[in-house]
Amino acid sequence: MTASIHSLPRRAEPSLQPLLALVADGMNSVNAVILDRMQSRIPLIPALAGHLIAGGGKRMRPMLTLAGAELVGYGGSRHYKLAAAVEFIHTATLLHDDVVDGSDMRRGKKAANIIYGNPATVLVGDFLFSRSFELMVEDGSIKVLRILSNASAIITEGEVDQLIAQREIETSEERYLAIINGKTAALFAAACRIAAVVAERPEDEELALDAYGRHLGTAFQLADDAIDYDSDADVMGKDKGDDFREGKMTLPVILAYARGNAEEREFWRRAIAGERNGEADLAHAIELIRKHDAVLATRERARHYAQRAIDAIASFPASAAKSAMIEAAEFAVARRF
Amino acid sequence: MTASIHSLPRRAEPSLQPLLALVADGMNSVNAVILDRMQSRIPLIPALAGHLIAGGGKRMRPMLTLAGAELVGYGGSRHYKLAAAVEFIHTATLLHDDVVDGSDMRRGKKAANIIYGNPATVLVGDFLFSRSFELMVEDGSIKVLRILSNASAIITEGEVDQLIAQREIETSEERYLAIINGKTAALFAAACRIAAVVAERPEDEELALDAYGRHLGTAFQLADDAIDYDSDADVMGKDKGDDFREGKMTLPVILAYARGNAEEREFWRRAIAGERNGEADLAHAIELIRKHDAVLATRERARHYAQRAIDAIASFPASAAKSAMIEAAEFAVARRF
Repeated sequence: MTASIHSLPRRAEPSLQPLLALVADGMNSVNAVILDRMQSRIPLIPALAGHLIAGGGKRMRPMLTLAGAELVGYGGSRHYKLAAAVEFIHTATLLHDDVVDGSDMRRGKKAANIIYGNPATVLVGDFLFSRSFELMVEDGSIKVLRILSNASAIITEGEVDQLIAQREIETSEERYLAIINGKTAALFAAACRIAAVVAERPEDEELALDAYGRHLGTAFQLADDAIDYDSDADVMGKDKGDDFREGKMTLPVILAYARGNAEEREFWRRAIAGERNGEADLAHAIELIRKHDAVLATRERARHYAQRAIDAIASFPASAAKSAMIEAAEFAVARRF
Repeated sequence: MTASIHSLPRRAEPSLQPLLALVADGMNSVNAVILDRMQSRIPLIPALAGHLIAGGGKRMRPMLTLAGAELVGYGGSRHYKLAAAVEFIHTATLLHDDVVDGSDMRRGKKAANIIYGNPATVLVGDFLFSRSFELMVEDGSIKVLRILSNASAIITEGEVDQLIAQREIETSEERYLAIINGKTAALFAAACRIAAVVAERPEDEELALDAYGRHLGTAFQLADDAIDYDSDADVMGKDKGDDFREGKMTLPVILAYARGNAEEREFWRRAIAGERNGEADLAHAIELIRKHDAVLATRERARHYAQRAIDAIASFPASAAKSAMIEAAEFAVARRF
């Protein structure tokens, strides 16, 4: 807890607030590194990178590095640079994703590719990726470099896999989990794990943090995918139905398709192929998903992974960091936006 | 020299042959690493990467790592993996370049983005970039990681700078040299330099190899840019006039514009802005470049850098490696294709 943040009574709904409070001071240091290291002799680079970096986003990954460091009792400052490196990798993949998906919007603002064009967006992504490695090299830990370069390779494999699966109705739940392991969970895992590495903690703590991050990332992504089809929720930050319009195979669709009858399956085939993606089609999709409890089932899967995240850090002694990390996992699945 | 390559009498024209012969055995090891490490559980990745990697290209950069290792008397095998890492970085930038430029052709074949689309091409570039860092991490030298991550950041800065300068008629020779330092010379320099690092040679040898690579890369790029407007040359491998049609500010144009009269400058302004890029315009551009000896002057600049490359390694004792590296620099500017 930092002096500048008031302690609030525990709310009934799980919240990110304890995590935010835990890392508030540290995140100032991380943000200073991010701002400093996105500079370049080419003004377009910080302009484009800053559009996304300054544009909000929870900075979950660097927060997790900092929370992990608290959990294992790390007293140094190496993790600030490394947390910035993690955020640069994440930002680079978002920039490339927007090009890959032809996105119009990101975090409620025009996507960088719309403002600056695809070419500059690709190249600035490359720049941030290079910078992230420069930051790691400055830190000097081969072990951290191994963890994050491996995560980066897995991320890009996951992105390619997702691209291939995009309009592929026969995507299985197993393949979908492999994709979100790549696109989300791998970097969450690496972000947590490197905290134990800089703290020079034993390998079982490293692996516990890795597991916490991996399961938390999976839970977040599953909950995101549920929210996109959740007819009850207030929608904030994300346009409902985006995944449907883009023909993305997410778990609600996979389950509704698997549980559907022949006629429903034919609808899904055509919808995912892009032949039925109007507003009426989206309404029908949401209806089918509700009929088969596919959002509910997706949320149950998310809850399973959130629980595994919590259990992965069970053997650590009680601390503010542990409580905040547990509540973050509860928040991941309870949130409706 | 390897047993499988016949010694040829020195030809009047400088040739790459001595360099190719010097590294032939080693390049088999490098190519084995490249083939092995571009594999992935996602079949599209080796398919797309292999399209470019198997599609020819001189593999100048890994050859330079191997030649540099010979020059400094390195007897180990670490450089094979690192030379493959260098080639992966280069391949990643080519894939992203093709997306950025909207290229149709690369090395005489359809560009990867035309066959596989921009999204997959961006992502496979990212994958190869990640793999290159995995290879470096396996080698374990922070110094090599520093040199190549720094080169990667400089490459992307150079690419962004080139993108901005693309249709900017007021590009100066100085800015142009900064751009080609980024897009070509930085990786040539790093490829050479790491040979001295793995051989644990003193820093002056490291810096000498860095300078050799940097000047050689600059000479190659300047000669390339001259060839694109060279009316006398037989054209091989590169479509003449590509730079003109794309509105690229290369040295022949910079010099013809600087040396031109008001009417000629107006032509260049409109040509580089993309308003005059037909075949008749290209013919006129070549005529103006000939009038002002701009190809000749570009070749003179290239010769200057080739000579600096040669002088950078002057203090090394005579060896097959040194001779091959000198002739490669002579070849860089003498070639007409």
